[in-house]
Amino acid sequence: MSAWVLPDHIADVLPSEARHIEELRRQLLDTARGYGCELVMPPLLEHLESLLTGTGEALDLQTFKLVDQLSGRMMGLRADTTPQVARIDAHLLNRSGVARLCYCGPVLHTRPDRPHATREPLQFGAEIYGHAGLEADLEVLLLALDCLKATQVAWLTVDLADARIVRSLFAGVPVEAQALRDVHAALAAKDASSLARLTRDFPAASREGLAALVTLYGDETVLAEARRVLPPSPAIAQALDQLAWIGRHLEGAAITYDLADLRGYAYYSGIRFGIYTPGASDALVRGGRYDEVGAVFGRNRPAAGFSLDVKELVGVVAKRPLKAAIRAPWGEQPQLRAAIARLRAEGETVVCVLPGHESEVDEFHCDRELVAQHGQWAVRPL
Amino acid sequence: MSAWVLPDHIADVLPSEARHIEELRRQLLDTARGYGCELVMPPLLEHLESLLTGTGEALDLQTFKLVDQLSGRMMGLRADTTPQVARIDAHLLNRSGVARLCYCGPVLHTRPDRPHATREPLQFGAEIYGHAGLEADLEVLLLALDCLKATQVAWLTVDLADARIVRSLFAGVPVEAQALRDVHAALAAKDASSLARLTRDFPAASREGLAALVTLYGDETVLAEARRVLPPSPAIAQALDQLAWIGRHLEGAAITYDLADLRGYAYYSGIRFGIYTPGASDALVRGGRYDEVGAVFGRNRPAAGFSLDVKELVGVVAKRPLKAAIRAPWGEQPQLRAAIARLRAEGETVVCVLPGHESEVDEFHCDRELVAQHGQWAVRPL
Repeated sequence: MSAWVLPDHIADVLPSEARHIEELRRQLLDTARGYGCELVMPPLLEHLESLLTGTGEALDLQTFKLVDQLSGRMMGLRADTTPQVARIDAHLLNRSGVARLCYCGPVLHTRPDRPHATREPLQFGAEIYGHAGLEADLEVLLLALDCLKATQVAWLTVDLADARIVRSLFAGVPVEAQALRDVHAALAAKDASSLARLTRDFPAASREGLAALVTLYGDETVLAEARRVLPPSPAIAQALDQLAWIGRHLEGAAITYDLADLRGYAYYSGIRFGIYTPGASDALVRGGRYDEVGAVFGRNRPAAGFSLDVKELVGVVAKRPLKAAIRAPWGEQPQLRAAIARLRAEGETVVCVLPGHESEVDEFHCDRELVAQHGQWAVRPL
Repeated sequence: MSAWVLPDHIADVLPSEARHIEELRRQLLDTARGYGCELVMPPLLEHLESLLTGTGEALDLQTFKLVDQLSGRMMGLRADTTPQVARIDAHLLNRSGVARLCYCGPVLHTRPDRPHATREPLQFGAEIYGHAGLEADLEVLLLALDCLKATQVAWLTVDLADARIVRSLFAGVPVEAQALRDVHAALAAKDASSLARLTRDFPAASREGLAALVTLYGDETVLAEARRVLPPSPAIAQALDQLAWIGRHLEGAAITYDLADLRGYAYYSGIRFGIYTPGASDALVRGGRYDEVGAVFGRNRPAAGFSLDVKELVGVVAKRPLKAAIRAPWGEQPQLRAAIARLRAEGETVVCVLPGHESEVDEFHCDRELVAQHGQWAVRPL
């Protein structure tokens, strides 16, 4: 194999896309900052047990492992940033009040999430710690929408779900781990016949509730229907009330509900959401409430947040025109060098043509050039 | 061990420093862009043989290795970005003319470079491919200085050296690898007596030249002295001429020369430089010419560039004041929400106080608050 062949699902980001990703990165971080989110930069490498915390098997399989030659201990490359941010909230900031945090950096996956997914997403996210109320759920959702609006993604749909509904329907039902996974898979696939077979020995309320979930997706009429067909349970009623409250506060957004949606089931403890746009093969953004995330670090604070992959986002955002550059000759004259420095200080890109390369096509698109006119250096159109 | 303990020489970057690093990152990338450098984002993980290319043993020891479970092949986590950028220049861009490239991302080291160094530097760098002339050496050096000026680092000293001088003095001398390493160590330590002992069987010109190098450091008089005491050799004369040319073009900078400096000896093929500032334990920036870097990728283009660690840089740059935020009440009223959205669109940070947290000290420093006055939402000082 040639030295320049990259591993599968690993790619270079070349200039035209890298510039765009950098612009998106800044817009996302600036939008989060506008909400008062403080930036943190957790490390790429941590002891394995710090990274695999309360988030289940999926993250373990996704995490690259290596040995720390300084200590002989196992380390992992982060496959998700949220457990790290929870650790920072719990141990380093250790605030009693609300903490709003954001981050943007690479994560690494041993295997791609989807057939064409990268194994090195650039994960951006924001999180609110310390507030158990719905206002925090709403704020992270509004921030996620504002982030996407700042990057000019059009046609957004918000898909709302709640991890407590399925959990309530399983409450008190003795199920083995494999059987639970099968039921989850049938729910996720909305496969009513498999679900009926798998749950035939469940208590009637659970069985009928799970069967009903398969049809409970669509617009806000789903919530009224859910109240009618799901078994009476305070937890389910509360979840439905909260979903309705969130939906009412997202004026202008296209909202769908999917009460059987189980993605991130091991992770979320309340409302969860996905934000979709045409052209993306999966949700652009995933988020919700995950109150248990800090427990392993000894500080079980309420938490809600979201994340997205900037490399995925760049694929659905319209290409932006590159601001054209100015071509300048190479020279030692102080006046020329001062003119170039002044233009750069004004934010212009000035490409000096190195001696012998005058006839080459510029790598940068130049629409102006710096020329000597009447003893002065001036910019003129090309 | 507790789950929140990080590996040695690995650290979180907390909000006050992370904000500062992000600002520096943007200034560095924008300065490089002003010179026409195009941003690239090579991956963190590559096949090992792509990462360890022509750069010698040092990088091999510094590189974390792991197995790709998709292919069974060994991969490495990049310990340096330059070999990746050389690969991109050689294979993906494949331009005939000049290519100016820059990058900013983490690299990982198995062991810290220095006693208090991080194992996860944030490496920023810029490189010019395709121009063998000194103008490219000068441009990367001026860009490096402009980058540091943009971040307001004061009291810079440029230290110039040239890999060809030591190489010429060894030319034609049969030396074993270990003996060569010992001579290098003696030169680096300016240990004249060890050097005399190690080189006593060398030809007189080499022995005397190497002995002279130990004293050849200081201001520009070093170059005249070198012409006097070093053996006559076209390669040495050319190197000294080029060092003098570069020095003349750095008007205003404090310059020192150190002709025995061997750092990066396996890597550089011509002029190399370090940029120092008081308060940094080592050079802030290292760079120079490394024309062989793309050879392994089948395209041996001239190359010159530099890199720095943004995490190191942030330690020597004066802290910048945080722009204070505006505190706002939480509320559902459309006028309040519109007022908050407007302020955020203007670039302000608006922290909404979530219900029940009114008496908490803000995590953000707020110097103004949004209040209802005469039926309107207005900002007033706190």
